[in-house]
Amino acid sequence: MSRTLLIAAAGERAESWTKAFAEIAPEIDVRMHGPGLDVSRIPYCLVWRAAPGLWPAMTNLKIIFGLGAGVDRLLADPSLPRDVPLVRMVEPELTRGMVEYVLWQCLFHHRKVWELEAAQSCATWRPHTYPAPWERTIGIMGLGELGTAAAAKLVEFGFKVRGWSRSPKALPKVESFQGAEQLPAFLAASEILVCLLPLTPETRGILNASLFALLPRGASVINAARGGHLVEADLSAAMASGQITAATLDVFETEPLPADHVFWSTERLYITPHNASITDPRSAAWRISRQIAKCEAGEELDNVVDRARGY
Amino acid sequence: MSRTLLIAAAGERAESWTKAFAEIAPEIDVRMHGPGLDVSRIPYCLVWRAAPGLWPAMTNLKIIFGLGAGVDRLLADPSLPRDVPLVRMVEPELTRGMVEYVLWQCLFHHRKVWELEAAQSCATWRPHTYPAPWERTIGIMGLGELGTAAAAKLVEFGFKVRGWSRSPKALPKVESFQGAEQLPAFLAASEILVCLLPLTPETRGILNASLFALLPRGASVINAARGGHLVEADLSAAMASGQITAATLDVFETEPLPADHVFWSTERLYITPHNASITDPRSAAWRISRQIAKCEAGEELDNVVDRARGY
Repeated sequence: MSRTLLIAAAGERAESWTKAFAEIAPEIDVRMHGPGLDVSRIPYCLVWRAAPGLWPAMTNLKIIFGLGAGVDRLLADPSLPRDVPLVRMVEPELTRGMVEYVLWQCLFHHRKVWELEAAQSCATWRPHTYPAPWERTIGIMGLGELGTAAAAKLVEFGFKVRGWSRSPKALPKVESFQGAEQLPAFLAASEILVCLLPLTPETRGILNASLFALLPRGASVINAARGGHLVEADLSAAMASGQITAATLDVFETEPLPADHVFWSTERLYITPHNASITDPRSAAWRISRQIAKCEAGEELDNVVDRARGY
Repeated sequence: MSRTLLIAAAGERAESWTKAFAEIAPEIDVRMHGPGLDVSRIPYCLVWRAAPGLWPAMTNLKIIFGLGAGVDRLLADPSLPRDVPLVRMVEPELTRGMVEYVLWQCLFHHRKVWELEAAQSCATWRPHTYPAPWERTIGIMGLGELGTAAAAKLVEFGFKVRGWSRSPKALPKVESFQGAEQLPAFLAASEILVCLLPLTPETRGILNASLFALLPRGASVINAARGGHLVEADLSAAMASGQITAATLDVFETEPLPADHVFWSTERLYITPHNASITDPRSAAWRISRQIAKCEAGEELDNVVDRARGY
């Protein structure tokens, strides 16, 4: 059982995972989690959301691999083993997809698609102006794998890019701000705000009324991180008042977003169904197999979550 | 009058042009075209559309500078002097803006925004899938300044990019096709077709029913070149049949697009009001002043239109 990997991810297209491992890392013995399977001796687990009772049953666990970039849901589970390394998914395809999403959405807000929609809905040819990218400031909250890659691409497009993170970061052509005390200065010029933060007790609810009030009037908000970052009622109020003109949300407090949620019918609020970026099984299988090999060789693992920090 | 430039471009924000030349090229004596102005001795002219009688009155013309990337409207004027060099606007800002537009629109069609709109309009959380960029083929018609720059950026994003042009081009990671005989092969895999061709007698009406029929079923069409490239009724028919799923048009046979035009209310047809990219007066003023200096020094000009070719 030395190289057995349990995949505990309902609805995550089991077949594509087994196929990916068979092709890319045939040395890994992959098992899908299901009733009757004895998991007590399986050393590795790839997990999206753990079924109740999974962790106590895995008594010989060596590494837990999270399937997404964020591990907040896994850490919220009190039964998660404390002494087993938890590895975040850092996978070039996941990063690339997020950069694609952020660029697409920043251009969407930069070019003010809602004005084009309004003109088209009343069959009117209206002059439509937009600033040059160096007249447009985009603020990225979170400068980890995803935020750093997105910021670099936005810089390439000529935008004025600023970033905010917990600890100081030096990125080429990105104006950096850190910590709570520099948050107001960061927000003051962020016309398009992009949230790519990890969800931790400190960042939960960070996108709230007082933060929106510090943005330039008429700003756009893009949340591609976690629903828990956003106080949904505060966004509705800020959009109603005109403080926030437009928003794109990929993540929500409750997913799927309930049919009666006000967001579905909010003008200039654009919804994507938590698919901004998707882990590629083939690329992930390769990464996971390398980490398992390192573990077997007694080497240090990459991207191990700092439990105190929360990411 | 040796460095006098006439600006003949109604509605082109005269003030921004005079200000740009005053700042960037104060050695140029700028005059705005208007009633009562004697233009007979003015050697240089920057023009968008020439007023009737302008060309016969400019009896000492040395260079005509077109204000846009395309010169089809200028060439269509029989009074355009045949023996004066006509210079196309090749300006990094105009190119950059077009690359921004093409990227924005390619991502818009790549991520199938119409499916998100449909889900949102009925308040339904629907799984929404989209291919990886290397599973998506984008075809660029026209590999001049704009097409070449757009293709390079799409390659950076990981898309499969192919280009079609009149003469053979070798661009890194772009599969190139040329001439009428290779057009069907080029079209056969172009899931998103982007038109950036110059408008010439050969390319007028090229986006027609027989071309659409050669695209993969369900393709998208983006026209950021000239309205004259598209046979509008053929696009309507191809969208009605499902051969073309979606389109973005920046240019139209008649501009402004008339209020009763069917395009305004065509599902999955997105309209931008001929503003995909805009010439930047400061950057253009610098380019024009350099060309005037070359002319005065007897040096060869850049980007002179080949009248026989039409661009």
